[in-house]
Amino acid sequence: VIVTVTPNPALDVTYAVDRVALGRSHRVREVREVAGGKGLNVAGVLTAMGREVMALGLVGAGGEAIAEDLAARGIRHSLGRVDGTVRRTVTVVSSGDGEATAFNEPGPRWTAQAADTLRALVTRTLGAVRPAVLVISGSVPPGMPVDGLSALVAIGRAHGCVVIVDAAREALAGVLGVGPDLVKPNHHELAEVVGTTDPVTGAARLRERGANQVVVSCGPRGLVLVDDGLAVRASLPDALRGNATGAGDAAVAALAAGLAEGRSGVQLLADAVAWSAASVLEPTAGIVDPAVVERLRATVVLTAEPATG
Amino acid sequence: VIVTVTPNPALDVTYAVDRVALGRSHRVREVREVAGGKGLNVAGVLTAMGREVMALGLVGAGGEAIAEDLAARGIRHSLGRVDGTVRRTVTVVSSGDGEATAFNEPGPRWTAQAADTLRALVTRTLGAVRPAVLVISGSVPPGMPVDGLSALVAIGRAHGCVVIVDAAREALAGVLGVGPDLVKPNHHELAEVVGTTDPVTGAARLRERGANQVVVSCGPRGLVLVDDGLAVRASLPDALRGNATGAGDAAVAALAAGLAEGRSGVQLLADAVAWSAASVLEPTAGIVDPAVVERLRATVVLTAEPATG
Repeated sequence: VIVTVTPNPALDVTYAVDRVALGRSHRVREVREVAGGKGLNVAGVLTAMGREVMALGLVGAGGEAIAEDLAARGIRHSLGRVDGTVRRTVTVVSSGDGEATAFNEPGPRWTAQAADTLRALVTRTLGAVRPAVLVISGSVPPGMPVDGLSALVAIGRAHGCVVIVDAAREALAGVLGVGPDLVKPNHHELAEVVGTTDPVTGAARLRERGANQVVVSCGPRGLVLVDDGLAVRASLPDALRGNATGAGDAAVAALAAGLAEGRSGVQLLADAVAWSAASVLEPTAGIVDPAVVERLRATVVLTAEPATG
Repeated sequence: VIVTVTPNPALDVTYAVDRVALGRSHRVREVREVAGGKGLNVAGVLTAMGREVMALGLVGAGGEAIAEDLAARGIRHSLGRVDGTVRRTVTVVSSGDGEATAFNEPGPRWTAQAADTLRALVTRTLGAVRPAVLVISGSVPPGMPVDGLSALVAIGRAHGCVVIVDAAREALAGVLGVGPDLVKPNHHELAEVVGTTDPVTGAARLRERGANQVVVSCGPRGLVLVDDGLAVRASLPDALRGNATGAGDAAVAALAAGLAEGRSGVQLLADAVAWSAASVLEPTAGIVDPAVVERLRATVVLTAEPATG
């Protein structure tokens, strides 16, 4: 079993409009609502790939819509409550040119009690389902204590889990000291924390600061894994066109599944590229087609080199 | 007492962002939520002006946020439930230039049961509070029966109420045959239904089709009332700068208060201009400052002329 924790889940709302004009009023033709937030996307991909998963998180009032969407998609979940209104992301898609403009709410401000609630939910679930891997993924809510993610990593390790963290900025920097087993920044997030966009150099710096394995996602240029003395690069021969939102989450899902099943190195990374690319071909984040994963997996190009640091 | 009916209430959400760029993702700095929908705005203005009011409507899941805002502002209300999610309007305001771009959801699709629920709520309330005036105001939800507004007008007349309707397009056209006491289209809505933007000619056509009194709002050019043989024009000497959203609702509130208190003609219309203009000076729809109303009321410019038709 793999458990995912989403500290700041969202209801992802898509508005279809005819054409967006700044400063004007628009009639929304169609409203679509799906569960969002990176850890929930990871759980969606793992479910689509037939892996056993349990998704955890805290939602504000109106979070029932998230639970309903997860249930409809067969994604096992247990969501706690936090004061305030459920976080929404609103993406306005103009039917003329398909251009998408997104507005992401920060989410309800956490009290100390919210942090307690999430820790208790994670502790209870890890004790009950004994997962091999714990994934902590996504943006952190306003007001989350600075040690919020580190505390969750520590709970995972205490329960014998391999712990993967996908976070950015202060949240990523703050979690390194407790030694997560794998972190997966994208190349922009890497640069924000260590000041270089070079994945091998940057990953080495994250490892110096405490991370064990590092996977850097570089958009269409693929993934780079840096481990003890080894740097592996994996990509597809040609970039795919599609929906990049959720590609990183599909990579994390593959990394979680691979670590749970004892894979490492080139095998682990090739899976991650295939799952990630399959996600790009789906219109919605958190979904992959297993047949597409298998087809793409055969085309992954891999290179390995020694890494310093 | 004045009762307002809002067939399609909304939660008006305002997003503060740094600067809007089409095709990009934006971090929302601040989320503000207030009750919206034209009939609720009318009730808000009447409450601010010290009139007794009861606001009715149907809301989807999440409508508690509307009820909470109404309660916080002291607006008496009774909201029924409809299947689906509460309608939202999202207005994105860029802090750079204050430019506001709005996205208005259509609202939950009504079933036949929703129409029954609203009719029962209106009948029960009119029986209990015996209002002098019934205001039916705002957009109609998808799936509302074509005779939905007419049925509400008929209930109002059966209870001896003066009935005011503020609606547009098919909803306005469809309600004329049952003879509402007053309709208040703006000049755009007038043109959509009768094919002319001239308020006196257009109002005469609405009266031919069944409306009794007609007030046409013409933006900064003020209001025109057309009654038996009389056309009254009222405006301010200078256009005001501010928030035009809700100006029409403040005019309707004044017309409702005036009809409840036996005013007519120039008096009625001068009040409506003053309340409407006071609303323009407030940042949020559904609010006026009584002192500002009084000050502006003294400056209203009135002309009356005979009207044919």
